[in-house]
Amino acid sequence: MTGLCGAGDAACGNAFVRRPRICWVGLADDRRRALDQPEARAKHHNGEESISMPSAIEFTGSERGPWRVTHMEATTGTGLPEVACISVHLRNDNIESLSSASTDVTWRLRGAISNLRYATREEVAILRSLQASLDRPAATSAALIPIKKSQAWWDLAQDERRAIFEEDSQHTMIGLRYLPAIARRLHHSRDLGEPFDFLTWFEFAPEHEADFEALLKDLRSTREWTFVEREVDIRLSRSELD
Amino acid sequence: MTGLCGAGDAACGNAFVRRPRICWVGLADDRRRALDQPEARAKHHNGEESISMPSAIEFTGSERGPWRVTHMEATTGTGLPEVACISVHLRNDNIESLSSASTDVTWRLRGAISNLRYATREEVAILRSLQASLDRPAATSAALIPIKKSQAWWDLAQDERRAIFEEDSQHTMIGLRYLPAIARRLHHSRDLGEPFDFLTWFEFAPEHEADFEALLKDLRSTREWTFVEREVDIRLSRSELD
Repeated sequence: MTGLCGAGDAACGNAFVRRPRICWVGLADDRRRALDQPEARAKHHNGEESISMPSAIEFTGSERGPWRVTHMEATTGTGLPEVACISVHLRNDNIESLSSASTDVTWRLRGAISNLRYATREEVAILRSLQASLDRPAATSAALIPIKKSQAWWDLAQDERRAIFEEDSQHTMIGLRYLPAIARRLHHSRDLGEPFDFLTWFEFAPEHEADFEALLKDLRSTREWTFVEREVDIRLSRSELD
Repeated sequence: MTGLCGAGDAACGNAFVRRPRICWVGLADDRRRALDQPEARAKHHNGEESISMPSAIEFTGSERGPWRVTHMEATTGTGLPEVACISVHLRNDNIESLSSASTDVTWRLRGAISNLRYATREEVAILRSLQASLDRPAATSAALIPIKKSQAWWDLAQDERRAIFEEDSQHTMIGLRYLPAIARRLHHSRDLGEPFDFLTWFEFAPEHEADFEALLKDLRSTREWTFVEREVDIRLSRSELD
């Protein structure tokens, strides 16, 4: 599982790397930073030059890449082929613009950074006041957890899904308990016809691993999780910032 | 604007046509019918062989195709290049599986048939009891209306969008008034990085054109529509069923 993963340019197999350390491919730093901060985006609407949302993201599993896989396990349903490393490719563009780079990957998972689907204004305000940004130097641990929910979930009406998601399962409130230690971002894949509905991504410092385990335990014990029919838990590590 | 549009095989430029009359490409009839009937899909969840949702759809504008363009107008914002005909391609598959067929098209717009985002259980029940299916022999008129909403809309929280969509604008209730005369289906494009957020599709008999105009007038007068920053109104006609 050690493979050729690493922090440097040489270890990252993608030709379009702008930030070799974590391999957010294809986006200038200022735009990428803005994508991590929803409140910054909100200033750009109404005809002024705006950051076109959502952006497409692709996670690739292969023998090379900045994130080394430390553990990989199918929590529910079918797993994914084992890989040594994972790369993250982000494009502020059409989903088709992805997939054009390296071809020597074992699998690709794609998603979109989209709008929130359940959070109320009050919850959004709390989330934004507490949220942690991705790409923090100390956050050398990460997890990629692709999730697929059942058709029964998607057949529910919006008010039923919301009730299970928050009033019953307290999904947002559980996440808040672990902020700002655990930074997270959700990527939507279902409309793209991908094998998973969501690609959840978490970043944290190694000393917060117990917190992360607690977060997962809390989420997996909810009623919402009874609708999860496929989940793969991929733990990752990278070198400290150069 | 007459072009080579038509109802027969010869007029439809796509090589994979199964139902030349309306050119729902790539899906067997039984599966396509099931896609039009959400309540039929609900029987298939939980591990039994299920119809994988959502499906990808592509509308192409060109000189050939089963739907003849009778009128095309940019209602808000920038229009689309004029075309003589429109074809509808539906795939129960990954969005990438589209776009592989004909290349002589002026533009392509893609979307996903996805879950409802605002409707409550009560509204879903009413919708399903009244809904009209697509592809009715008498429904020889159609409209394709691509819509893009502003960043201000997408920056709203879910409860704020729902309040504008239904409690304020009565989007679902307006649509109900015109059922079953006006059949409609919404396609989601935003997560695909497309130029529009939605591709709305309507089918009706020519004698219901006044109803359709009234439906559009009602919707466009709502507060929800103040968030629409681009809308193209494309009216279509096809021959009667063979």
